[in-house]
Amino acid sequence: MNRLISCLFLLFSTTTFCQTSDSLIIRKFFDESLVNGKSYHWLGEICSTIGPRVSGSPQAEMAVNYLKKELDQLSLDSVYLQEVMVPHWVRGKKESAYYLMGKEKKTVAICALGGSIATPPQGLKALVVEVHNYEELKALGKENVQGKIVFMNHPMKLEYVSTFEAYGEAAGFRWATAMKAAALGALGVVVRSMTLSMDNFPHTGAMGYADTIPKIPACAISTLGAEALSKAIKENNNLEFYFYQSSAILPDTLSHNVIGEIRGTELPNEVIVIGGHVDAWDLGQGAHDDGAGIVETMEVVRLFKRLNLHPKRTIRFVGFMNEENGGKGGEVYAKQAKLKGEITIAAIESDEGGFTPRGFSFNGDSLQTEFVKKSKELFYPYGLNQWGKGYGGSDINHLEDQGTLLIGFMPDSQRYFEVHHAATDTFDKVSRRELEMSAASMAGLVYMLSEYGIK
Amino acid sequence: MNRLISCLFLLFSTTTFCQTSDSLIIRKFFDESLVNGKSYHWLGEICSTIGPRVSGSPQAEMAVNYLKKELDQLSLDSVYLQEVMVPHWVRGKKESAYYLMGKEKKTVAICALGGSIATPPQGLKALVVEVHNYEELKALGKENVQGKIVFMNHPMKLEYVSTFEAYGEAAGFRWATAMKAAALGALGVVVRSMTLSMDNFPHTGAMGYADTIPKIPACAISTLGAEALSKAIKENNNLEFYFYQSSAILPDTLSHNVIGEIRGTELPNEVIVIGGHVDAWDLGQGAHDDGAGIVETMEVVRLFKRLNLHPKRTIRFVGFMNEENGGKGGEVYAKQAKLKGEITIAAIESDEGGFTPRGFSFNGDSLQTEFVKKSKELFYPYGLNQWGKGYGGSDINHLEDQGTLLIGFMPDSQRYFEVHHAATDTFDKVSRRELEMSAASMAGLVYMLSEYGIK
Repeated sequence: MNRLISCLFLLFSTTTFCQTSDSLIIRKFFDESLVNGKSYHWLGEICSTIGPRVSGSPQAEMAVNYLKKELDQLSLDSVYLQEVMVPHWVRGKKESAYYLMGKEKKTVAICALGGSIATPPQGLKALVVEVHNYEELKALGKENVQGKIVFMNHPMKLEYVSTFEAYGEAAGFRWATAMKAAALGALGVVVRSMTLSMDNFPHTGAMGYADTIPKIPACAISTLGAEALSKAIKENNNLEFYFYQSSAILPDTLSHNVIGEIRGTELPNEVIVIGGHVDAWDLGQGAHDDGAGIVETMEVVRLFKRLNLHPKRTIRFVGFMNEENGGKGGEVYAKQAKLKGEITIAAIESDEGGFTPRGFSFNGDSLQTEFVKKSKELFYPYGLNQWGKGYGGSDINHLEDQGTLLIGFMPDSQRYFEVHHAATDTFDKVSRRELEMSAASMAGLVYMLSEYGIK
Repeated sequence: MNRLISCLFLLFSTTTFCQTSDSLIIRKFFDESLVNGKSYHWLGEICSTIGPRVSGSPQAEMAVNYLKKELDQLSLDSVYLQEVMVPHWVRGKKESAYYLMGKEKKTVAICALGGSIATPPQGLKALVVEVHNYEELKALGKENVQGKIVFMNHPMKLEYVSTFEAYGEAAGFRWATAMKAAALGALGVVVRSMTLSMDNFPHTGAMGYADTIPKIPACAISTLGAEALSKAIKENNNLEFYFYQSSAILPDTLSHNVIGEIRGTELPNEVIVIGGHVDAWDLGQGAHDDGAGIVETMEVVRLFKRLNLHPKRTIRFVGFMNEENGGKGGEVYAKQAKLKGEITIAAIESDEGGFTPRGFSFNGDSLQTEFVKKSKELFYPYGLNQWGKGYGGSDINHLEDQGTLLIGFMPDSQRYFEVHHAATDTFDKVSRRELEMSAASMAGLVYMLSEYGIK
């Protein structure tokens, strides 16, 4: 592309949208975020200086303190931490795994799933059986599962246009296969990584146990590893698989949500929450999940201050702790809000990566409100065309029974599962402009909420 | 993001769009491209195996032959090469540059601009003057420019939402500063790289000379280099700058456009052209510019064959040669089409990178046609919401006087100028899904064109 003649991208021109005062303020959010934005700098610190931030880890608390320090410099009306007791899971030593082809050990890339127990210290070696769903597992029955390792090879569906839809269809297998397999006497489970890529990075993520079923170790295998293992099983239905992990569940630990707010000038009791989650899985740096969401929403409050805007309603940034493996931060926040009798009119969560903004999803019937109708056209010039009904986010979801309008920020979804919960989720995978566009988009919607409420 | 409950992204669901036969065929393009697509594989070969493909280089011909070989395997109705004489510029040895702080040489990252002559063999050292636009250059006048190096430090505008708009505003300075400065007696020019990133990668690109003005060497400096140089000039207005490059303009060379077509079943004389350009600048691998455009549009013809579709009109893939520094491929193609009396009803060019598809731009008044009105809603479920008036592309633009509807494919623009014409434009910067979504989008539009024409 060597286009020297200025292109007439009139749709996206900086000058063609309707010049109301609302649109001018939204334009200022974009100008400031794109020209002087702080989100990318903050993300670099969180990712490169601090690194991964599993709940209960020292890095998680370093991130809490760093965010508080940065918020303290924004001249907000108040900045504080909120105590949260969180699960404390640790990965332990580097995992290893192989299957046996005759006497040859064919290594494959695995990682312990978040929340999993360890294998025995010498690792776990057993015959492996492959299934693709629970029906196949059930059909195998106890006689074919007992004493074996279950390999759940359920690929995410490539043909889904929304990668979150593909994730939603598949991720339950990561959560529940250990329970279902243990109930049939399995000794361990290997779950195909939740990604649409074909590569050698295992993707971790939360898995669950039930009190009434034995706990067995569970790991994720890379997609290339899953393909190789599946092929080997087809060639040898008495294939042995070995894996080793030393992960452990430690006692619950004290951690914090990080909160910073601008008090509303006219309706301070009406609160608009914006946030993401501070914690992140430990394989990468938690750049897209969810460093991006944190720095974008912190940028929202910075933009209000920087542009000297005085919102009618209270705007509150919340950096939630423990989204990944327990959701305790969201739970505590919602409980405290209820105890204080706060009216949280709306909450926006950014937890789908730091990609080009595409729109927002709204719970309930709010798509039909005047607020949404009035707002959405203001964002078309910035490419936010997708205003749909949908999920808000797992942190803010705890506010559902308080009548809060729950809004999910929707960036483009195509790249998210390349990096999600994997070693590839690093700062270099984030585009500065995509992050800044996202921050400005949310600032714009928060402005509309603070000016007009949700009616 | 640890969402276990399937999300209700109804807008993007695979099942909610209107089930007409057109929409079903478009859905099949996406299914096939996302599940069995070849575009990413082809791109890997072009980028990693062959590499950069400057017009006239051995790699450019290797790419021509590789593409022909791949097209030959698609069972098209005809595959052939079209001869094109192209300019042949070579970069020569690695460039170097520094400015002097006292006796200390402060090195900065530069590269020769495409088409530039070399410096003298020992390099060029002279006082440097900074300007930000032509008005400042003119105001300096001959007395302040003669015998010096001109540093054109015009940043692309960060606040523009469309990065192509920002490029359009700035890229003329890359093309013409050498001419304007030489007319005032300058010995060389240094142009700030055309990028919105702040990093140490110089971005090349075409520059021009005029027959009546002395030719002087021109290079691009990285944005970090430009910032440092600008600061140094502010501290010392007698700053000396040195640069060395050994680039050369060789005699024009025989090269080729690569063409493959599916003959229309009902109106074979009505041709729909789709393509990108085979050549690429030499610093990276030409992955986004324009390997992506080539493999996406090759995938379009593969998808038609794979789905056993028999288009009413002729669909012709054209891999244009020499877009970057001469446009000879586009020129020859259009000339030959005219000589043969062909009716090219429409042409689609993909030359804005392999990113998530956002829409199409149309020349003339075609946005008002029934064809466009009927088509666009079919693409909303795939996130193509941006249907605007605009430029088609510099290769297909040569068809303008043949009454051809010129259509520019528009992927998301935020990341393009991070890599454009720089060493960073490599295969690993391309997301497989984004590429495949783009290929399917164009296949869908080509299908609508082949079924209904452009009325």
